Amino acid sequence: FIKCYDSEIDDSLPTLGIPDSSFMTVKKQITPEEVRVVVLAKLRLRQDMVLWDIGAGSGSVSIEADALLPFGRIFAVERNSDSLRFLRQNLNNFHSRNVRLVEGEAPACLEDLPDPDRVFIGGSGGNLWELLEVIDERLSASGRVVLTASTLDTLVAATDFFENNGYVIEVVTLNIARTSSETDYKMFEALNPVYVVVALKESASATLA
Amino acid sequence: FIKCYDSEIDDSLPTLGIPDSSFMTVKKQITPEEVRVVVLAKLRLRQDMVLWDIGAGSGSVSIEADALLPFGRIFAVERNSDSLRFLRQNLNNFHSRNVRLVEGEAPACLEDLPDPDRVFIGGSGGNLWELLEVIDERLSASGRVVLTASTLDTLVAATDFFENNGYVIEVVTLNIARTSSETDYKMFEALNPVYVVVALKESASATLA
Amino acid sequence: FIKCYDSEIDDSLPTLGIPDSSFMTVKKQITPEEVRVVVLAKLRLRQDMVLWDIGAGSGSVSIEADALLPFGRIFAVERNSDSLRFLRQNLNNFHSRNVRLVEGEAPACLEDLPDPDRVFIGGSGGNLWELLEVIDERLSASGRVVLTASTLDTLVAATDFFENNGYVIEVVTLNIARTSSETDYKMFEALNPVYVVVALKESASATLA
Amino acid sequence: FIKCYDSEIDDSLPTLGIPDSSFMTVKKQITPEEVRVVVLAKLRLRQDMVLWDIGAGSGSVSIEADALLPFGRIFAVERNSDSLRFLRQNLNNFHSRNVRLVEGEAPACLEDLPDPDRVFIGGSGGNLWELLEVIDERLSASGRVVLTASTLDTLVAATDFFENNGYVIEVVTLNIARTSSETDYKMFEALNPVYVVVALKESASATLA
Repeated sequence: FIKCYDSEIDDSLPTLGIPDSSFMTVKKQITPEEVRVVVLAKLRLRQDMVLWDIGAGSGSVSIEADALLPFGRIFAVERNSDSLRFLRQNLNNFHSRNVRLVEGEAPACLEDLPDPDRVFIGGSGGNLWELLEVIDERLSASGRVVLTASTLDTLVAATDFFENNGYVIEVVTLNIARTSSETDYKMFEALNPVYVVVALKESASATLA
Repeated sequence: FIKCYDSEIDDSLPTLGIPDSSFMTVKKQITPEEVRVVVLAKLRLRQDMVLWDIGAGSGSVSIEADALLPFGRIFAVERNSDSLRFLRQNLNNFHSRNVRLVEGEAPACLEDLPDPDRVFIGGSGGNLWELLEVIDERLSASGRVVLTASTLDTLVAATDFFENNGYVIEVVTLNIARTSSETDYKMFEALNPVYVVVALKESASATLA
Repeated sequence: FIKCYDSEIDDSLPTLGIPDSSFMTVKKQITPEEVRVVVLAKLRLRQDMVLWDIGAGSGSVSIEADALLPFGRIFAVERNSDSLRFLRQNLNNFHSRNVRLVEGEAPACLEDLPDPDRVFIGGSGGNLWELLEVIDERLSASGRVVLTASTLDTLVAATDFFENNGYVIEVVTLNIARTSSETDYKMFEALNPVYVVVALKESASATLA
Repeated sequence: FIKCYDSEIDDSLPTLGIPDSSFMTVKKQITPEEVRVVVLAKLRLRQDMVLWDIGAGSGSVSIEADALLPFGRIFAVERNSDSLRFLRQNLNNFHSRNVRLVEGEAPACLEDLPDPDRVFIGGSGGNLWELLEVIDERLSASGRVVLTASTLDTLVAATDFFENNGYVIEVVTLNIARTSSETDYKMFEALNPVYVVVALKESASATLA
């Protein structure tokens, strides 16, 4: 029974690179595939870590992280009811084993979760500073926070917080455009630019490598 | 003994996202981390596939693919003797279990390899068309070729070939810039743009998803 | 009377940098301000030159070029009847003195025009190669052609033509995103990438500078 | 005599688009051509305005602005002695008629200059906030400030100031790459990304158009 279940996954899914179209989602509300894998790489996940995915949306980051955290735990936090409906369906469709859904408003709903080794913030609903303060208290030593910003306000607020709290910061700007032989004349279509903010809790030997 | 070897890897390496600085390499001759993970995602690797990595350079793509192909086989093809020295050292340092080094000039040296499910071309040494013809003959049904182009000539040649041979094509342009709190005033530094050409062998139901 | 007319222009218009919103246009069918001024710079206009603007659309390039060609002649060529209506209105609104409207299909309708020193191609309607052959015959010595491509097909076709005909080529890729305090949270919004192809008719001393 | 001098300029220089290579400059210390013309467009220069060019460097913005301000006055402010030497030579080579060189440290050296309608800040030497306070006091009604930032720190500081002082802000991100038939295989080479910050002094009817 379990064997059958496993082979189902193996046949249908790559070990990395789930196409955006495989996720049920509120229109266009998804971290695009290319951004998602850069986020996962910057998280530097190890097999048994605890990951908080805050503002999980359709759950694409949590779901794709599942294969990279075989002995870990992932908490997909979301408050929006439309998103939650799709999130639940996607977790089901992908048989995500280590992802637990957390309904509610961050940071309040984070209280009962185990302390994170890694945190991804895809959306913060306007209370970013407060959220980051809670994360900063809970984050394990040598922990990492990765945040995607698509607005100047979020970029500025996040880098301000991390600087003031002694994190080592890296910002990666991603400007991505796609064309395919399925579109007219192979038109290049740009995704909006995304700023991937990577913050590493300071310690004597901290570097971003 | 083997257990000890495994735990060494688990402790020192993330399951995705090896920093560029971890590879020994001819100066700046590496597929940067962000590009590398997009390439790996676009390859849509499954656990037991055969991957050819042509123009493997420092081996970063093969080495990072190793964790994504636990039951697969990876052939890292390289002809340049300087690169080969670093490639060998990197394969050793990372304990890459499923990567086999192939010294020599592609396409000639590909003859004895098993047919590929996936091919990555990071460099072609000027004989791209001939190389693609050999790959086209050998590639398994529903196979995929991913190629990174940093020049207009390679972009044009590759898309010409794939169009003429009935592949479905997607091109993803990556414009990446980085800044970190370790650089003066957090200067944004651009990587040169990379065109990731994704080609899927045509079949009745072929789509790029 | 003429004085009054001139002072109207001086008061209302900058000498460079007409906002996109000042042009009447088919929805979104305009060379964006930032791309337009790069095109004008790459044309290296001199005061008394003849400029062909092929696929003139709303006329924004011709209209903005008018101030840079005080003793020159500009031919705005367009075939689409919707575009022509807006083009006519824009030429009128901006009092463009040296721009003549040419209705019809290029290259046929180019026959009676004076030979160009500079050609801008913003759209070619599918017969690009034939169009470029006519331009190549007519272009003055040390002439320049600037073309904007938003598709891979146009980029490849144009660079192929210019290479085969001995032009010196430069391609400038523009990835532009904008945010403003008038949008929510200052969201960065990407324009689709544009390839500006600059081609200089070969001569002994030709360089792109 | 004057006629001869004028015709010299007309023959040798385009009315827009001076190549970077025409300027004598400290190595790579120049606002690249494509960025320069976007800056000039965003300044919305009118014929008789007063422009301050602060951190003028090689003078490329002032010199290219000269043709767009036939009845205006341009003040090129620079403190670095190496830059000043090249700036002086360039102003001389280009016969810039309306550009006056101001040696010294901004904002101190701005005191005796006429109030500006437009200000471009290409470099601020670390005292940006103080500089912007002085500019804010002196800027004419409906004045405009354009600033290029290549670091996250400058971007954040500038947008903070303009927000706190009631300006309407637009930020344009420019990611530019170039290739030419004169380089090997037409390699695409990226310029570092530039943030063009455009700030308009608030008034009842202020919009960025």
